[in-house]
Amino acid sequence: MKVNGQHYRTIWVSKEDSSCIMIIDQRKLPHHFVVEEIRTATQMATAIKDMHLRGAGLIGVAAAFGIYLAVCNAGAADNLQEVIRNAGYELMSTRPPAVNLAWAVHRQWEALGTEEHRETMVQKALATAQQMADEDAAACKAIGLAGLPLIEKISADKMGEVVNILTHCNAGWLAFVDHGSALAPIYAAHDKGIPVHVWVDETRPRNQGASLTAWELGMHGVPHTIIADNTGGHLMQHNKVDMVIVGSDRTTINGDVANKIGTYLKALAAKDNNIPFYVALPSSSIDWQIADGLKEINIELRDGDEVKFIDGLCDGEIKRVLLTPPESKAMNVGFDVTPARLVTKLITERGICEPGREGLFELYPEMKTDG
Amino acid sequence: MKVNGQHYRTIWVSKEDSSCIMIIDQRKLPHHFVVEEIRTATQMATAIKDMHLRGAGLIGVAAAFGIYLAVCNAGAADNLQEVIRNAGYELMSTRPPAVNLAWAVHRQWEALGTEEHRETMVQKALATAQQMADEDAAACKAIGLAGLPLIEKISADKMGEVVNILTHCNAGWLAFVDHGSALAPIYAAHDKGIPVHVWVDETRPRNQGASLTAWELGMHGVPHTIIADNTGGHLMQHNKVDMVIVGSDRTTINGDVANKIGTYLKALAAKDNNIPFYVALPSSSIDWQIADGLKEINIELRDGDEVKFIDGLCDGEIKRVLLTPPESKAMNVGFDVTPARLVTKLITERGICEPGREGLFELYPEMKTDG
Repeated sequence: MKVNGQHYRTIWVSKEDSSCIMIIDQRKLPHHFVVEEIRTATQMATAIKDMHLRGAGLIGVAAAFGIYLAVCNAGAADNLQEVIRNAGYELMSTRPPAVNLAWAVHRQWEALGTEEHRETMVQKALATAQQMADEDAAACKAIGLAGLPLIEKISADKMGEVVNILTHCNAGWLAFVDHGSALAPIYAAHDKGIPVHVWVDETRPRNQGASLTAWELGMHGVPHTIIADNTGGHLMQHNKVDMVIVGSDRTTINGDVANKIGTYLKALAAKDNNIPFYVALPSSSIDWQIADGLKEINIELRDGDEVKFIDGLCDGEIKRVLLTPPESKAMNVGFDVTPARLVTKLITERGICEPGREGLFELYPEMKTDG
Repeated sequence: MKVNGQHYRTIWVSKEDSSCIMIIDQRKLPHHFVVEEIRTATQMATAIKDMHLRGAGLIGVAAAFGIYLAVCNAGAADNLQEVIRNAGYELMSTRPPAVNLAWAVHRQWEALGTEEHRETMVQKALATAQQMADEDAAACKAIGLAGLPLIEKISADKMGEVVNILTHCNAGWLAFVDHGSALAPIYAAHDKGIPVHVWVDETRPRNQGASLTAWELGMHGVPHTIIADNTGGHLMQHNKVDMVIVGSDRTTINGDVANKIGTYLKALAAKDNNIPFYVALPSSSIDWQIADGLKEINIELRDGDEVKFIDGLCDGEIKRVLLTPPESKAMNVGFDVTPARLVTKLITERGICEPGREGLFELYPEMKTDG
């Protein structure tokens, strides 16, 4: 998508140096647009863990590039199979419950197989990571096209009046390589000239909505309004929301959805007010191994200081301010699980389906196992 | 309640100068404890509007003192009846939907009647405001005692294990003259030696939970943990919340509850997880004139900049930082309405009742009208 009129992806290989991966440092947004150079697998692991980049799709692709960097940097005496194994474990351990990390690492491992020739491995790892980046962008574009008719339908029902869509966190192009998941249908509708307006949940504690979603919608010219996370229920009670679209960090075969903390509350409000609640996701974030999201998904606990402190712009500089009594404790839960019963439909790169086994297997029959 | 070991109310008459009202400037909390002098009705209106003080009970009493200040400051040539009328309208217009403001102003007007003698009016207005302050503190204390058995019961059921209580916004002593509404039963339980722990919703956008509730619980030694507003649903799904207690800015005779934005979302989550959801309120915040909260309560829209900017402590100073792209719009809704169907019980100064006409009239039979 565009940044100040120029096309960007969120991750790419440096034109000057193919052993250098370029990312947008999302911690600086929306205040500063900073491109960061990543040169080692450990730097990539840190970038994922400390959220220089984040988002289901993007961290998967970043992990794949991380393994590529590990191979690039391996010494002549290193056992290359050991190098990619260790880098993979390091990268996978950065963020639960992101299924994309494990998926990406395993795909690189498979692609590299038992290969031991350094140059071949470098080429293979780069080609695989590049392909995953292209596939991610293509899947997101397809999600946009799959979700577009849902917005067109509401627009038609409202006789062309503005369609109000609520979203939580950032499932835009910044969370993927391009286009995004939840925002992809919105971009598709906007680009087609359908009047849309997005309610952007600020998404405490890390404010990915207020900083990233608002920024990318603004850069693309999509009308939007930032609201406190507390506000969505009230807007739904008063017919100010026509649909909700959120992303997903991990979706179970039952259709339970792990997504940014607070998603569950919005799903409850949508249900209570008969508003459709859609979850947009590339199939790479489906965990085909687990069924009960509430019981089986390991939820990330992050540092409480992310609740107690916040970064913002003051006199042109990013400053960190304390919001609470210094001695009060804070708890920082990264995700919650929205049960499938609250999800209207899933929007995937292969189309729209009911949340659950039957719907998912219709779109992805190859994932059916005999068990 | 106590501040650094010394007893305070939130509003009092200066010992040095009886025409000066002292308040705690809550905008500076939790970082600085600042007492502010208020000398005119207009200063009091500003203090209410700009939230130097806030909270259902406290703003009512503050308005009553505001009318007292108007009388104190009236010139010899002024028509005193006109003075108190104008001051009343000014004070009432500061914050919707706070029923306490109108209630307090009308009570002062009634107490002053058609009196025109300046000295008598000064004395009457002071006595009425003082009495309202005392009544507010007494009502809150009674709410604490009424709610205490609910906590004792859970504590007994859990064999003395810690009782986890979630609260939203600040309905503590800072929101009243003393004791608080939602926090009153918690203080009563804590003071009785029952182990309690409070999940404090930070309560964006003004963060009254993270700043005020955490501060007053900390000052009183009550164990607590601050969480982002997004977190309560997840905690309830995982049995980490035994009960919810919130306050109310306005309760209808149907039992619908207007309270800080986001309350409705927590009520939905409590219902979904079979967790009792209590609303604690002095009867002064019941609006006996209206029934349907969603249709009839005028919801305050505040400045969007309260969402876009936040104040916090940086290098010992309170700094304001920008959280969003500067050009993005933000919407700032002050309250939402939780329908009675989601409320387990109301806790009032006269005891506990079902949310709705029948329950309320049982406790307040004098409010029954023939209509």
